[in-house]
Order: sequence, then structure tokens, then C-alpha cells
Amino acid sequence: MRLNLNSDLGEGYGPWKMGDDAAMLEIVGSANIACGAHAGDPEIMRATVRTALKHGVSLGAHPSYPDLPGFGRRAMALSAAELESQIAFQIGALAGVAALEGGRVSHVKPHGALNNLACADADTAHTVCRAVRAVDRDLILLAPAASQLVAAGRALGLAVVEEVFADRAYLPNGELMPRSRPGAVLHDADACRDHVLGMLAAGALIAFDGTRLPTPIGSVCVHGDNPGAVHVARALRAALEATGHELVPLPALAAA
Amino acid sequence: MRLNLNSDLGEGYGPWKMGDDAAMLEIVGSANIACGAHAGDPEIMRATVRTALKHGVSLGAHPSYPDLPGFGRRAMALSAAELESQIAFQIGALAGVAALEGGRVSHVKPHGALNNLACADADTAHTVCRAVRAVDRDLILLAPAASQLVAAGRALGLAVVEEVFADRAYLPNGELMPRSRPGAVLHDADACRDHVLGMLAAGALIAFDGTRLPTPIGSVCVHGDNPGAVHVARALRAALEATGHELVPLPALAAA
Amino acid sequence: MRLNLNSDLGEGYGPWKMGDDAAMLEIVGSANIACGAHAGDPEIMRATVRTALKHGVSLGAHPSYPDLPGFGRRAMALSAAELESQIAFQIGALAGVAALEGGRVSHVKPHGALNNLACADADTAHTVCRAVRAVDRDLILLAPAASQLVAAGRALGLAVVEEVFADRAYLPNGELMPRSRPGAVLHDADACRDHVLGMLAAGALIAFDGTRLPTPIGSVCVHGDNPGAVHVARALRAALEATGHELVPLPALAAA
Amino acid sequence: MRLNLNSDLGEGYGPWKMGDDAAMLEIVGSANIACGAHAGDPEIMRATVRTALKHGVSLGAHPSYPDLPGFGRRAMALSAAELESQIAFQIGALAGVAALEGGRVSHVKPHGALNNLACADADTAHTVCRAVRAVDRDLILLAPAASQLVAAGRALGLAVVEEVFADRAYLPNGELMPRSRPGAVLHDADACRDHVLGMLAAGALIAFDGTRLPTPIGSVCVHGDNPGAVHVARALRAALEATGHELVPLPALAAA
Repeated sequence: MRLNLNSDLGEGYGPWKMGDDAAMLEIVGSANIACGAHAGDPEIMRATVRTALKHGVSLGAHPSYPDLPGFGRRAMALSAAELESQIAFQIGALAGVAALEGGRVSHVKPHGALNNLACADADTAHTVCRAVRAVDRDLILLAPAASQLVAAGRALGLAVVEEVFADRAYLPNGELMPRSRPGAVLHDADACRDHVLGMLAAGALIAFDGTRLPTPIGSVCVHGDNPGAVHVARALRAALEATGHELVPLPALAAA
Repeated sequence: MRLNLNSDLGEGYGPWKMGDDAAMLEIVGSANIACGAHAGDPEIMRATVRTALKHGVSLGAHPSYPDLPGFGRRAMALSAAELESQIAFQIGALAGVAALEGGRVSHVKPHGALNNLACADADTAHTVCRAVRAVDRDLILLAPAASQLVAAGRALGLAVVEEVFADRAYLPNGELMPRSRPGAVLHDADACRDHVLGMLAAGALIAFDGTRLPTPIGSVCVHGDNPGAVHVARALRAALEATGHELVPLPALAAA
Repeated sequence: MRLNLNSDLGEGYGPWKMGDDAAMLEIVGSANIACGAHAGDPEIMRATVRTALKHGVSLGAHPSYPDLPGFGRRAMALSAAELESQIAFQIGALAGVAALEGGRVSHVKPHGALNNLACADADTAHTVCRAVRAVDRDLILLAPAASQLVAAGRALGLAVVEEVFADRAYLPNGELMPRSRPGAVLHDADACRDHVLGMLAAGALIAFDGTRLPTPIGSVCVHGDNPGAVHVARALRAALEATGHELVPLPALAAA
Repeated sequence: MRLNLNSDLGEGYGPWKMGDDAAMLEIVGSANIACGAHAGDPEIMRATVRTALKHGVSLGAHPSYPDLPGFGRRAMALSAAELESQIAFQIGALAGVAALEGGRVSHVKPHGALNNLACADADTAHTVCRAVRAVDRDLILLAPAASQLVAAGRALGLAVVEEVFADRAYLPNGELMPRSRPGAVLHDADACRDHVLGMLAAGALIAFDGTRLPTPIGSVCVHGDNPGAVHVARALRAALEATGHELVPLPALAAA
């Protein structure tokens, strides 16, 4: 039962920090690294790559709309061509910085508002996947389970790994419950653990009302933006290992 | 007698144009393409790559200090580590966009204030070359003839091609005459042609006072920022072909 | 019969030019000056202010979504609070630069995608007008005739001047015909002149199908992004003067 | 014995925080607010202004070289004209945002590498002061005690208030001891208190070796970038009040 843990990392910028990357890189198998568009300057990208490599964590590009002050969370009306160029630019930029440290980029996971749109809109999903494939057809696509992005990646022949979120409740249609609704975010380590173990056991997304959407879950996304989140991630990792899961970087999983 | 013509291209940004890239890509063998730091957004980078590939023009990264409003012409106090990360980021970004169009980056030429410093300061020259080599040791370094950058590239084992400027006068020490001095810039097509043919025949930089600095000249840099400049470049190309030079992209030259 | 001519100016950035500002500042009475968000760095803003003041042209802020590579033409999902802060920031920035040259900002006209939304959406229109009024309640709002933006400005007590476009056809509902439709843009000087004179005589927007939307037209927007456009603007100015219109800066008009 | 406490605030950007602004705005009388060039987006500027006004804290612009990833701490080769335009832009931008909240900017204090140069180089100091005066001749200049910037401000007729740093040791020539030297930064609340009280009693900068540079000290700069720094600032304020100092905003001080 191989499984991957992933986290969004390298999301500081210039003098500003975000999250405890050092702690998370001891927990996860794969890092989604900001590429300068929503966060991450070249020095932060490099430091994140270096620490990831030290811990055997695989490197992923985390491309975003180009919106630093909005942290990539605001929708932007980019054309399909603009979006392709942006994604290629950002994957390449991380690949260049990774090469400086002797590493290579093995997966891609879109960020923020771009990811949201790519999960819901098939055209955007195909645009993202076309760009990923054109840059390097061996790149693994890490995408929210049961989304349009998963479907597009498969349709275009990419290796796709489906992820669930440890700390987020799902709607019956498989989308994340909006943060504005009560219960959308799980803060308790036990609740997150039970949520994840339940979905892994079922081989399905499980919505807040019990609805099950069967899908092959390959990765769990954890966060490290506050001490509580790091604790949740560490406890989840321990629980997964205790229940017989072998935690691996994405390339080991995709190769299986 | 193989020779390369190169030009700085893709130097628009967003809605703004600079120079006649389409005309220049019919003249030169290699394009130094802005990577987003001093000019060039992902869409412009992509369009430049596409047109270059159509004409068989080889692709080079033209990394710069990150200073869009200053067009990379203002000195910036980056640390060696910051400079390495910047260069790797920019080369990688262009490589990503190039991959989108089925191309690859085969050379690097620093831009503006960064290039000036790397030509004069051995430490900066080594920092630049270390970054280039770490990203991809097969990258060709295109550098001003007889500069510290040339020396650093050779010392670090890079393939180095030395360039002269068709439209710029040289000082006896091999540096470009500052633009503020009369005669620093040659505007006349015949003058540019004679300047270049003289240096190629001599196998040397020739300063304004006749001083010769012998060095192997492999490439000539031409500009296309105004109709006059395009005319000069076209006339120079014709003159070089008429005098028996085979004009080739940089990889063909470096392989020789 | 007082009338104002206005134009969007100062839309270069760093080394990049856009349009012939010098020519336009001899034609128009008021300049809408880019404030750094879609175009215009501090030096370009200053140069535009200086030339405008030399010609007695009144100064207006031309605030935009913060999207330099997209030139403010891409919709962005800013909250009302973010939009207010952006507008205040941009008006203030121009006011600071204007003060450096002894001038002051007397009007505001939103740019691009922001302007489009503010014309069609009453909430956005009110947000824009609230920000303008909070910064300085004496600022004149320059807005497309018969738009939601005009209504909001009036509702909030701003001095509002309604503008028509010399070179654009209108739909029967008063909106601009999309550029994608044939006939949306008038290129001929005579056609532009007749279009404007017809609307001024009628005291109404006149749509392509003859529909009239009566509204007080106080200003005409002209463009200078190419030699043809400058010629159209110059011819229009001559025709307006020949037909007895007194061309004035916006403050003179709003005070009337 | 009126005295001012000031602090550099609003130095977050987008989603990123820096320092405990809320705590500091209960301690200081004047805030130096980042204007978007080294930190501070329009929303953060606005939130900082709002909280400052609530506590009766006076507002100052904290202009910087335009270098967000470098936090304004890297020297940049701006021309005098570029520097003037930048400073006017940034002061104006803050003034616009302040107006939105019903406040006004009453002082200016340069940031980072720009401040360092303006303290040491008379030409830069005059350029900064010319820009400040041109924007609004009633603006107070807050400048490091005994610096070229103080001299330039006085020479140009600005109201100048000289500040000392509570937590930094001085060299005998009045410059700050570089952070790289042991003892350059005082971390202990008692040491900071004694340092400040000693200088206030002496009416002089006191260097680490006891050298005294008599100068009228009007303000003390405190930091809030970590819990220890906030504690130091709070303790210093208590000690100053206990020793009979009346702590006031800068305008109250400059008016005296």
C-alpha cells in the first residue's frame, strides 16, 4: 500500500516567511514548490530544493496565475495561450533552479485559483495538461481526486496521481467545501487522521454527508502554515505508517 | 570560415514592442532571448522562440538583473548566491517556454549591467559561469571578446564563443567605448562592415586608436532596435557572405 | 459650447514607448495618465505631467487593475476593499509625482477591464466612486456616457463629465461595440468627425443602427497610438473648433 | 521634555506578515509606513493607516528603492531624477491611501539602502530632500541623528527631527556599527533603555567607545519584528515616561 504525502512549500518571498518548510520536509515525500508567480523568489526556490533533496523529497512545480500580492488566489482572465506560456515558464524556472542544486522536477501541481478552475473546467484542465506535457511528457500530474484536471491528465497521457486533503471536508460532488462554511476545515489531528484513513480504506472521496466517490487515491496533501498544522501532518504520517502504508515520493508511486 | 551573427531579441514586454524581431530573425543565426527579468514576458518569449525555430535560429538565454523598469541597465548589489539563483531561474524559464515549442536553449549571454560587471570583474564572471555550468554543462557561453567573462568560461570548462559588436568602438584595453563619448556608436552601414571585416581579418579586437588585441572572434552582435539598425545588420550579413564567411548558429560553431 | 478632448497618455513603461504623447498633448485639453498599474513608471508619469503642464493640459489619474503584462485589460477578481485601496494608491501616486512638477490631479478615469466592469456593474461603479470621493471630493469623474459609472458618480455627488469615443461604434444599449465585430473601430478621420459632430448635435449617443440615447456629452476621447490616430485627433479638433466648440480642460468644463 | 517614538510598520506584503504592528501602534507616536516599493501593498498600507489613526499615531511615508524581493536593502543605481520621481510616487501613494481613511501623511523617513546612502552622501541626501519638499514643504523629515540627511533637510528648509536607534550601537563618527560586528545590536531591554536615556541626558549620540556627538535628539526608533523587540519597545516607553518625557507624535514635536 504505497502512498504519498505532499505539501505546498517554498511559499515565502524575499524577506517574508510562510509556514515551517523545514519541519514539513521531514514529513512529506513530495514538495510542491512555488515558482515565483504567487510566491517564491529564486533564492527561496533554491533553498527549498536544497532541503528537499537532503531529505529525499521529490520536487514538483506549483505554477500559479502571476499574482504575487493576491498569492495566486484571485481569478485572472488569461487566454489559453497565455496560460500555457506561464505554466511552461514556471516549470522551467524551477527546473533551472533545481539543476543548480543537482535536482530535477518530477511533478506539477497547479496552485490556488488556477487549480480551482482547472478542477472545475475541462478546457482549462486540458490547457494546463497540454502545457505540462509539452514541457516534459514524463512529468507526473498531481491533481485533486475526481476532478476535471485528473480526467484531462489521463486523456492526454500524463501519469496522474490523485490527492485528497487531510484537513478539508468534501461536498457530495467531490469539490472542496468552501472555507466559508462551518466544518469546511478540520483542525483536529484525530479528525484529519480519521478522514484520511476512512477515504483510503474506502478507496473513495467521502463527502461530509457520507456520499462516496470511488477513485484511486495516491497522495494526501498536508499543510504546515502553523504549528498546529505541522502537528496534524506529523500525526497523520505516524498513523499512516502504523496502518501499513509505505510513504514514498511521487516518482516511486507513479512508477508502480 | 564559419561565423555567427547574434542579436538581443524578445525585448518587448506585455503590450510593448522593442525592435523588429521578425526582420532580425531572418538575418542572424542565434537569438539572445530576454527571460522576463529585464524584458520578455512568457508570451513574448514563446513568440520569439517560435519564430526563431522557424528560421533555424538557435536559442540563447539572455539573463539579467531583475529590473524591468530599468531594463537591466542599472547596477544592483546582488550576492553571488542571489546571482546564481537568478541566472538558473531565467535560463530554466526560457528552457520551459522553448520546450513548449519543441526547441531547446543552447547558449547563454548575460545582459546589460550584469554583462558589464561580468566582463570587468573576475568574481562576477565566475559566478555567472558557475550558474550556467550547473544548469547544463553543454550550454555555450556567448561573451564579449577578450573579457573576464571569456576567461571565466574557459576556466570552468564551458564552450565559449567570443563576440564583437558591429556598431561599437573599442578602447585600447578591449572595453567598449562608453556611449557618452563621440564616435562610440557607429551608425553607418559601411563603417560597421569595415569595422567587423577588419577585426575578422586581423583576428583581433581593433580599438579606435588602432590598438590590436588578438583573440578568436566567433560571433558578431547586431542590433535591430530601429530601421537603420536592421539595414546595417542586413548589409553586414551580405558583406560577410560575399567575403566567404559561412554564417551558422552557435551550436554549429561551437562544435567545430 | 464648451467641450473637452481627452486622451490616455503616459502609457509607456521603463524603456518602452506607447503612442505619440508629445503630439497628443498639443491636441487635447486633459490627459488620463497611467499610474504604474497597467503602464507608467514614476519617470514616465513625471515626464507626461511636465509636458501636459507646459501645454495647459489638465491632469487625470487613469487607475487600473494592477496587471502590467496584461496592460490592465484582463479582468481580475479584486474585492471591493482591494479595489478602493488600489484606486486611492494610484491617484495618490500620480498626485505625488504631479506635485513634484508643480501640478495637481483634477480628474479620474478608470482604465481597461476595470473601466469596462465599472460601466456595466453598479456595485463596481459605486466602489470606484467611493474611492475617488474619499481621496478628494473635488476630483472630477470622467466616465463613458450613459454608463453605470456616470450614474454612480452622480449618486455620490462627484462632478461627472460624460465622454464619447471618436473612433468607436456604439450598440443600441450604449455600450461600445466589441472590437471583434466589423465596423467597431472607425479609422477614417471624416467618419470619426461625422460620428462625433452627429452626437454633439443630437445631444445623444448614436448607435450604429441609429438608436439615440440622449445624454449630456462633455468630452471626447481620442487616441494617439499610431500616426493615423494622431491625424484623426488633430482633424477632429480642427473640425470642432470650426463648428464653434470651445475646447477646454476638464476643470473649466466641470466648473461651468 | 517632549520626545517621539517611531517604528517602521506596514512591512508585510500580500499574504505575508512582518512584525507585530498592532502591538507597536500602541507604543509609538509615529509610524513609518512602507509604500509598496520594499513592502506594503495598498491593502496593508490601508490597514496600517487605519490602526494608526485609531491610536493617534502620526503617519509617515517610508520610501525605498523599488526592490520588493530585496526588501529595499540592496543598493540600486538610480539617477537623481529617478530617485525624485520614486520618492514623490511613494509619498503620494501613501497620501492617497491615507485620505481613504481620513488621514494625512505628516512625515517622511527613507528606508534601507536608500536611507544608508542618504545618510552618508550629501548629493543623495539633497535629492531626497528636494523631492520631499517639492511634494509638500510641510512634510517633516525624520532622519538619523547627525547624518548628511539631517544637514540636507535643514539646508532645504524642511522641519527635521533627528532620531536615534534604541537597539543599535554607534561608531565614533556617528554611523551605525555594522550588524556584522559583535555588539552592533542590543537585545536586552535594560541595555536599550540605558543607551537611550544616556544619549537623551547627554544631548548627544554616544558611540560604543564613549565618543559623544552632540545633536538634538527628537525621536527614538524602535522595532517590533519579534516578541523580544516588542518587549524592548514597551519597556523603553515605560522608562521614558517614568523619567519625565512626554511622548508625542512628530507633528506635535516639530511644531514645538
